[in-house]
Parts: sequence; C-alpha cells; structure tokens
Amino acid sequence: MHNKIVILTDGYSTPFLAKTAISLLRYRTDDIAAVIDGAAAGSTAQQVLSAGGDVPVVASLADVADADALYVGIAPPGGKLPDEWRPMILEALQRKLDVVSGLHDFLTDDEEYRSAAEQSGAKLVDVRRNKHKSTATGHRFRKGCIRIHPVGHDCSIGKMVTSLEVQRGLSAAGHDAKFLATGQTGIMISGEGVPIDCVVADFVNGAAEQLLIQNEQHDFLLIEGQGSISHPAFSAVTAGLLHGCAPDGLIFCYEAGRTQVKGLDDFDIPSMKDQMAACHAMANLRHPCRFIGIAINTRNLTAEEADAELARAEAEFGLPACDVYRTGADKLVEACVALRKELGQ
Amino acid sequence: MHNKIVILTDGYSTPFLAKTAISLLRYRTDDIAAVIDGAAAGSTAQQVLSAGGDVPVVASLADVADADALYVGIAPPGGKLPDEWRPMILEALQRKLDVVSGLHDFLTDDEEYRSAAEQSGAKLVDVRRNKHKSTATGHRFRKGCIRIHPVGHDCSIGKMVTSLEVQRGLSAAGHDAKFLATGQTGIMISGEGVPIDCVVADFVNGAAEQLLIQNEQHDFLLIEGQGSISHPAFSAVTAGLLHGCAPDGLIFCYEAGRTQVKGLDDFDIPSMKDQMAACHAMANLRHPCRFIGIAINTRNLTAEEADAELARAEAEFGLPACDVYRTGADKLVEACVALRKELGQ
Repeated sequence: MHNKIVILTDGYSTPFLAKTAISLLRYRTDDIAAVIDGAAAGSTAQQVLSAGGDVPVVASLADVADADALYVGIAPPGGKLPDEWRPMILEALQRKLDVVSGLHDFLTDDEEYRSAAEQSGAKLVDVRRNKHKSTATGHRFRKGCIRIHPVGHDCSIGKMVTSLEVQRGLSAAGHDAKFLATGQTGIMISGEGVPIDCVVADFVNGAAEQLLIQNEQHDFLLIEGQGSISHPAFSAVTAGLLHGCAPDGLIFCYEAGRTQVKGLDDFDIPSMKDQMAACHAMANLRHPCRFIGIAINTRNLTAEEADAELARAEAEFGLPACDVYRTGADKLVEACVALRKELGQ
Repeated sequence: MHNKIVILTDGYSTPFLAKTAISLLRYRTDDIAAVIDGAAAGSTAQQVLSAGGDVPVVASLADVADADALYVGIAPPGGKLPDEWRPMILEALQRKLDVVSGLHDFLTDDEEYRSAAEQSGAKLVDVRRNKHKSTATGHRFRKGCIRIHPVGHDCSIGKMVTSLEVQRGLSAAGHDAKFLATGQTGIMISGEGVPIDCVVADFVNGAAEQLLIQNEQHDFLLIEGQGSISHPAFSAVTAGLLHGCAPDGLIFCYEAGRTQVKGLDDFDIPSMKDQMAACHAMANLRHPCRFIGIAINTRNLTAEEADAELARAEAEFGLPACDVYRTGADKLVEACVALRKELGQ
C-alpha cells in the first residue's frame, strides 16, 4: 500500500464533494503526505476538511518533496473527473507517482494518461474498474457468520464510517470481525472490496454475494452500505447489495436535519418509517433480518441537540442509537453481539 | 428492420431458454424465415416452440435459401453464448447475414467475428451493448403521461408479453399508448429501448428515466418489467427500473404453480403478498402508485383450472385478473383507462 499519499481535492474541498479525501484523512492519516487545494494552501487538513490533523494543505505537487501516489479525493454524483485537473495528474505521472482514482471516468481509458504512465513507469489505478460477471446464486451462508449491513436515508451520511467503527469495536472486544468495502473510498482504505456501483446491473447481487462468500470464515462481516433504498438515482445499487449480502442485521443511518436528497434539492427524502419498512421488506425477501440499531450523523447539531436527537430516536424506534463520530459505536457493537447470541452462535 | 430472419436456438429449444425465439416468433412472425435446431429439423416452429405457425425448423443455415440476418434466440441466466455455435455464426457472417445477439457475451468483442463481419460487410449487433452514463434526476413526469409497469414473482413469466398485449389493447381502443422495451427481446421486437440489465449499476435508474423522458408525450407508457423484486440475482435491475420509470400503476404477473426461482431450484419464491407489499413500498418511495391488475400465466393449467385460478386471484387480491395469452388483456386495458380517469386525465 502507498504510504506517502498526496490527495487531490483542488477546488472541491467541501464535505459534500471531498468525501473520499475526508475518509482517507480519517482512516489512513499516517499514510497521507499532503492535500492539494490552491485556495486553502497553508492550512492544515483538519482546518479545511475536519480530519487529518496536521497534514498540510498545499497549492501544488511541487510543494511536496516526497510522495508515492496521487489519490483523487472526490466522489461527485455520476463520478466525473474535473477537466482542470489534467495538468496535475500528468505532473504526478511524470514524477512517477501512481495515480489512484475511484471515479466512473477511467484514467486507464485516457490515451494521454496511459502514455505518461508508460513513460515514467507509474501505475494508473481505477478502483471502480471491474469485470464482475457472475450472477448471484442465493447462497446459504455459514450460520456462524453474522452479516451486518448499514443502510441509510441518503448518500454521504456515514454508512461506511459506521461499518468501520463497528468493526473496530468488535475487533477491540476480541471478536473476529471484518469490514467489507463496496465503494471506492472503502476500497482505498482497506485495500480490497467490490466497487458495487460500477458493476453491470445483472451482476450486482452476484458481485456482493461473491465478496461475502470469500469472507464467510469470519464471525462478523460489516458490509459497507451504498446509496439508499429510496434514492431516485441509486436504489438499484442499494437493493442489489442488500440482496447480495443477505444480512442478518441492519443498522439504519441518517443525518439529523437532512430533508432533501443529496444533489437533488427538490426531491424530498421519504419518511424514515417508510424507508425502514421498505428496507425491512426487501431484506426479508432474501433472508430473515431485522434492524439492530440506529446510527445518526449529528454534524449539524450542537452537543445538546445531538443528545436529544439520540434519545428521541431510541424512543421512536425502540433501538440503540449512536453517533459513531461523537459518542463512539459501543451500543451498536453490543447490538451485534446480542444478535449473534439471539441467532444461537 | 430485418425481414428474413433466421433464429438460432440449436440444442436450446425449450421455453426455459428460448424465450427470445418464442417472442420473436410471436410478435414478428412475418419477418422470420426459419429456426435452426438440428434435433427438431422438419418440424414447424409451432410444434417445437408453440409459436410461429408454419415457420420451418431446419438443421443448418444451408437449408435457408434467402435470409438477411441470424438472431441468437436464447436468453440464458448470465447471458453466455454456447461455444458450439461459433461455426454457425461464422457461416452466417460469411454469407453476409447480419448477426444480432442480446447476450452479455458481446459478439463485437470477438476478434474472429469482427474480422469475418468486416470481410463480408455483414453487421454485428449486440443489443445489450450500451454506454448509459447519466444518473437519474427524480424527474417529474407530465401528469397526462400514465406509466404502467408489470412486475412479477420471477423471470420468464410473461411481463413483456403483458406490456405488449396491454399496449395493443389500448391502441386498438384508440388511445395513444407505447410499449417501451427494457430487455434484449423487447428491443428486438420493437426496434428500440434500453437493455437495462446491462447498464452499469449507478446508471440503471437514470437509463430508465431517460427512456421515459424521451417518450413522455404519449398518454400511456407500458414499460417492460425485468426480473423480480425478490430475485436473489436480479433485484438490482428490478428495483432500479421501478424507480427509474416512477410508475402510476403496477400489474402483478405470476406463473400459476411456479414455486422455485427460475434457475435456482432450491430457492423458494417468497409469497405473492410479501412481494406485492415490497413492490408497493418501493414504488411509493418514488411516486404514488398502486396495483391495477394481475396477469397470470396459466400455461401449466387446463382451461378449467385456469378459469378457477383467475377467479381465485380476483377474489384474493381484489383486482382484475387476465391470462393475456388465453383470455386477452381486456380487463387490464380497462384498468389502465380507469386509472387515467382516477388521476384526472
């Protein structure tokens, strides 16, 4: 794995767009050399993106003496690479830095990038590129392998972070738990996984199922969620993933205060109740499954408001609720262990 | 459009596999010159595949004097082309017949086919090949455009035929109704559409939405359904299509007596009630929608049993029920018109 990574977010350093950068800064802090964003040069990553501590934000690659890779740090809806980044990507390739991207626009489809990489010996890595072509079989998973899957009311609300924090909590408590990445950022963090939203539709369920079959020996699998079951654009991904991983337990994730679909401002997010009912109905068509907890992202609330929201959610849904960023994931970890016992393991 | 088509089903002439052939024989009878299946040579298509009347079944392409295209007539799960068909496809290309396939294995990715086509001037057509890359926007469709979408309890039960028969019935009654194909067979029949199961997952909803936006001027759109909401392998396709076309009305389709998922014999099909509830919940997350009727495929029942099943379903679901093959689609046509009135159009 790379350990002197420069993250590119130039002009896009908002939580809305720089989701990949923020998660890399959070989970691979020691591997990050710098973040490139001209407008914020001189700041720290913590100041600009609320993650990464003292990692410096710089104006250009020339400001980073020692680096081994340039990571594209954004994940815009639809996954296009900004045109204005071309010179920076070419500069990186000329310096023999590998360039890693999770966008739908593939670097490896670009003649100019390919030839620059060939000349210097740098690698082009398209995390989303895949050749998954097997259909799901309705596999019956090992009973002792408890599958936990966070689903949410929208994109970019913390489903991946919830999976990671619960996995870490379970591992810290001595359980055999593994995080399974299903998106570009998760794959960049963990070094493996399936870029499920870039799989051909007929093979989405199958690609998820295969990923789980390969990891069935573990006692807990925390499978990263994608999109939302009600998302006008991404529900195909969410539904296929839900059936492919045949979860035993679901965690419902939402951001307090968010009412409109990310990127579709005039589209109301349906009620939590309707979404949870749809998720529950869908999941149970494949395998018996129930909600075991709630993960609330309270980033737009004060500490006091956050506590109130957590208490309110626990009362409304009758389930343990955490903000994994603020309160840790302990209650969700306990809920996973309780589910395992309930299932006789 | 081709009008001297040879359909290739050699060794695969069962209703389970030769779905594409059967539908082409049914809806493009006059354009079909012959069906190739060595084991059944000398029979008529009607005898072998219960469709196509006197269209002859022959042993090889050499038996067809005049032809303009060879169509691959099968749609196996996963979409692979049988290896043993290579010599026949090459023979067709050498004779300057276009070769049309709806499989996931693309003809146009095959060096040998490409070079044979180039030499003779024949065309290779991969119906499933597509470059859809736009995400859905949650488009608000014109109120006067009533969108009807058949969904079903499994694959290959007559969702496409239901769409076509209802569209024909509406058109015959003087309404402006259009069939929108979303699968390879529907596209081969109607000459246009979106091969939705071969779209990259992030763009499934968007590809469906775009197809509908291009046809929003019509009063009724009959959008071909795919897979089933509970299918272990194909629910990603079903869910994305359901949200992409934002239907006003659903028709529930099932085959009487089928209890196991097609191709996954040890996987029980969930109850109709649970499936209909999941479809209803999912559809209503996107747009207000209700079931307007039931389409039952009674091919394995006697006439008497079929009548009883139709009556039973009408009583159980409180909805009009047809077998569009046996009884015609009149009741479903009436239900579409009634829905349009109910919606104030």
